[in-house]
Amino acid sequence: MDRVIRVNARLGTIAATPVSEETRAWGGRQTIAEVLTRETSPLSDPLGRGNALVFAPGWLGGTAVTTSGRLSVGAKSPLTGGIKEANVGGEAGQKLARLGVHALILEDAPDAPAARGLYVGPHGARWIEDLSLAGRTVGETFRVLRERFGETCGILAIGPAGEFRMGAAGVATTDASGTQIRYAARGGLGAVMGAKGVKAIVLDDGGAAADRGADPARLAEAARRYATALINDPKAQGMSKQGTSAIVGTANELGLLPTRNFREGRFEAADALQGARLAELVAERGGRGRTGVPCMTGCVIRCSNVFPDPGGEIAVASLQYETIALLGSNCGVATLDGVAHLNALCNDLGLDTIEMGCVLGVAMEAGLAAFGDVEAAADLLTQTAKGTPLGRILGQGVVFAGRALGVRRIPAVNGQGIPGYDPRAMKGNGVTYVTSPMGADHTAGNAFGTWKAIDPLSGAGQIANSRGLQVRAAILDMAGLCLFARAPFVAEPELLADLVSGRLGRDVSFSDIVTAAAHTLTLERDFNQRAGRSDAFCDVPEFMRFEPLPPHNTVFDIGHDEMMRIWDIEPDRKGF
Amino acid sequence: MDRVIRVNARLGTIAATPVSEETRAWGGRQTIAEVLTRETSPLSDPLGRGNALVFAPGWLGGTAVTTSGRLSVGAKSPLTGGIKEANVGGEAGQKLARLGVHALILEDAPDAPAARGLYVGPHGARWIEDLSLAGRTVGETFRVLRERFGETCGILAIGPAGEFRMGAAGVATTDASGTQIRYAARGGLGAVMGAKGVKAIVLDDGGAAADRGADPARLAEAARRYATALINDPKAQGMSKQGTSAIVGTANELGLLPTRNFREGRFEAADALQGARLAELVAERGGRGRTGVPCMTGCVIRCSNVFPDPGGEIAVASLQYETIALLGSNCGVATLDGVAHLNALCNDLGLDTIEMGCVLGVAMEAGLAAFGDVEAAADLLTQTAKGTPLGRILGQGVVFAGRALGVRRIPAVNGQGIPGYDPRAMKGNGVTYVTSPMGADHTAGNAFGTWKAIDPLSGAGQIANSRGLQVRAAILDMAGLCLFARAPFVAEPELLADLVSGRLGRDVSFSDIVTAAAHTLTLERDFNQRAGRSDAFCDVPEFMRFEPLPPHNTVFDIGHDEMMRIWDIEPDRKGF
Repeated sequence: MDRVIRVNARLGTIAATPVSEETRAWGGRQTIAEVLTRETSPLSDPLGRGNALVFAPGWLGGTAVTTSGRLSVGAKSPLTGGIKEANVGGEAGQKLARLGVHALILEDAPDAPAARGLYVGPHGARWIEDLSLAGRTVGETFRVLRERFGETCGILAIGPAGEFRMGAAGVATTDASGTQIRYAARGGLGAVMGAKGVKAIVLDDGGAAADRGADPARLAEAARRYATALINDPKAQGMSKQGTSAIVGTANELGLLPTRNFREGRFEAADALQGARLAELVAERGGRGRTGVPCMTGCVIRCSNVFPDPGGEIAVASLQYETIALLGSNCGVATLDGVAHLNALCNDLGLDTIEMGCVLGVAMEAGLAAFGDVEAAADLLTQTAKGTPLGRILGQGVVFAGRALGVRRIPAVNGQGIPGYDPRAMKGNGVTYVTSPMGADHTAGNAFGTWKAIDPLSGAGQIANSRGLQVRAAILDMAGLCLFARAPFVAEPELLADLVSGRLGRDVSFSDIVTAAAHTLTLERDFNQRAGRSDAFCDVPEFMRFEPLPPHNTVFDIGHDEMMRIWDIEPDRKGF
Repeated sequence: MDRVIRVNARLGTIAATPVSEETRAWGGRQTIAEVLTRETSPLSDPLGRGNALVFAPGWLGGTAVTTSGRLSVGAKSPLTGGIKEANVGGEAGQKLARLGVHALILEDAPDAPAARGLYVGPHGARWIEDLSLAGRTVGETFRVLRERFGETCGILAIGPAGEFRMGAAGVATTDASGTQIRYAARGGLGAVMGAKGVKAIVLDDGGAAADRGADPARLAEAARRYATALINDPKAQGMSKQGTSAIVGTANELGLLPTRNFREGRFEAADALQGARLAELVAERGGRGRTGVPCMTGCVIRCSNVFPDPGGEIAVASLQYETIALLGSNCGVATLDGVAHLNALCNDLGLDTIEMGCVLGVAMEAGLAAFGDVEAAADLLTQTAKGTPLGRILGQGVVFAGRALGVRRIPAVNGQGIPGYDPRAMKGNGVTYVTSPMGADHTAGNAFGTWKAIDPLSGAGQIANSRGLQVRAAILDMAGLCLFARAPFVAEPELLADLVSGRLGRDVSFSDIVTAAAHTLTLERDFNQRAGRSDAFCDVPEFMRFEPLPPHNTVFDIGHDEMMRIWDIEPDRKGF
């Protein structure tokens, strides 16, 4: 990863420059934070000329290290108004890294809407001038580009929602099999890509070999140790059975499962949405249905699935917990088929399922559809792609939609819809939603995994808990590693240091990595501070401080002042 | 003004408490700033339970001092996210003051939408239980309440836009003749009133006499001197001929008149919108048309008008510069009849004409109507009151509408639409829009009056200019005086001190008044800072820094850092 490609989306110029030694040491989420901090103004209009959209592989991107191919996508967010990094599996991260690209940066913006394609190949980058991509769904866009550039290329694309520059628009990408549609979903980064006039980016690495790192022996040794540890970790291996849907039952039991616009924490039909039911349906229906599917080539966790329709054809791939919680219970939708239908629509239209699950919940509270009415919900989703006035309200995200529809209970923090953990019953997540530079994001420091150790209904210990989880999430986002790949590092933090040392060709300790992650969080917080999106200015939604959440009937009661002291806590430099 | 009335909009309780000595010294805009700072959290949801809506007369409210009856209305704004004070002429301020009410505060908010009426009379306040007000236009609401409570009562009300809690909703009030509809228009305060579930407030002072002040002789003497000075001031007296519409020609000549969504600064049809034309039409058409109309009883400036339709019936009262600029040239509307039609609609639906002029300009840029098409514009306005999806987009204000419609050129600063002075050609106003706690507000420090002294196309001297104007505006907003009543104080600042001293019954110097105004601005800035709406986080819209404005082809080029030093300048404690 020895160069940076800069694309001026206004002038159309493309330039590649070698990376400096300093830049080379940045990975993924840190690259986003450094580039935005150094090259853009925090006051820039997220959809204007001053924002930059950055694609950056992690430290381990392009190597043969398992689960290391996550691609960080980042910009100033039109939803949160602060810096946003969303990362995604699939093939794009590996391809970009194997093309030797440390960062791909879309700068400036055209005055008139555009939907151009960009090709990045072994011999450089160029615009795709002869394909008409405007208005196409994500699925069509992938098909058209695969027909032209071959089945093995990686693709990043936006749907109609991104072209409309809607706040709920994400950036979609492909998997190696051409089956899954994965998303760098959150923060409205699809709208930023739309504002750059870029519809799709094709990444063609020409079958390049894995990056062996600056110290190949050290990297290979650490990679082997790491893969072995993951393969021997029962929890990681358990993920191949039901994937993230395995937690539906626990979330429901804990009473934190968003239900009917966050009015309840337990859904009477949760059994029908559970991971066990998902696995059962996959087994029963056969056909193209699968569990234990990897999103990235070589992943040994394989938490993804191909969810089949009753006829065995692909309904959606992959069906995940967040989507089940938000498009399912939060909308009163009581079947996995219903969720899969809405999920597939979001995927094709270019929409974040979490944000849209919050939007639909609010729309249902406003009476635009009955809770549980899948067809009415699908119609609402479809309107976004048509650009109808109602679609333009819904596609802008839950704060916008709630305001427009006159709904007072808007489940959002920092401008972004709340993911599948109600902060009243999982208080550590409330702390993360408020204090993370990423806003209400389930990947920025999710306390779900700590529920056995720390009472989720109590505020006690949640601030330190969230802080530790936020640092851990930042580390994984910098490494390009999946959040589910953490177990070996919990057992042996220096294993991560060995991987990074082998990749960079110099000694990096785990303590150095913690320092870099803390530095990244500081950069992000500083950017947000200067953008007016400091956590000092936000809290959980008002109703979550007043309205008890059944069945535990708790409100969110961690004081704002107390949360603001989270960064006074020293990070743990030894434990992961 | 010896008591504060607190209404709990959730519980329905009403309580009156005597004011303390400290509170008694606050006037109008300062009362807003003090109450919000002391009693609410800057983090509160503007449309939620934590915000307070405050109505407060100025220092001179309720007295016989001419032009002193402006009522300050304030809350945390759903548009700017910061503190907002909007003040309004008409009768409400005088009535509230003569009822002895130093501040009327609506606290908390009901869960379910409501549209209650509140009656404040000589014997206290109570809910109006037996009138159905929900969904009524402002005109109907005034009529129904006048029928019940008599023609002489003062009324504050919201229209359907406020009931929908739309960001462009203002708070309307009556004049003594029942002809005019005046607005505390800006900042979406009508949405806050809607969120409180209060549709209208009737102020029945039972014909109470004017407040003679704590030192009646001193107040009467100063009031006489002041009235004489105003009557002898040629500029103030000139206002009775054409009112604020007199400046259309100059604004056009200076090239700062918003035209077709702020694309140009000069409108080819400006002659047809000029003050001279307005006066001519009033004279030609006769009937109920008038110029030289006061908005407050006893005002000697009389800048308002009753604009007649061709048949001599009332088209709208009063037709003012800001509305002509925003609903006129900014929408390409080339006749005063067209502007009056749109103005009357806004008045009736409860909408701020400035915000809606910006919204319609953006909607026209998006192709929803042709520039200049009055009927199409009227249809768009009407949709807000119907609550159609498109109406819900437009009624939320220009930032919301521009974002939803995918328009990149959004003329707003700090979330609020820009009034009738393009900052590229009147740079002092750009400084005010960015640095005033009130955002893009023409009454918060308008540099228009300084164009002869300070080149409006140059940035030189504009920061000090804006600062002085902001302090002056705050002083008048605290006194309850009209901005057009300033000439005598420019000539003799201590005259204002005499008026305030007579009213409060203790020696107040002009320097003391400047200190109080600077303190108010500091409170407001501090509130905004804590709310995340510091001027450090905002700038003029991006396009105004890139896109030259014809005919002078200037961009806004005062540096953000330079503007941020505005509060380092010491206020002038001698000159007004």
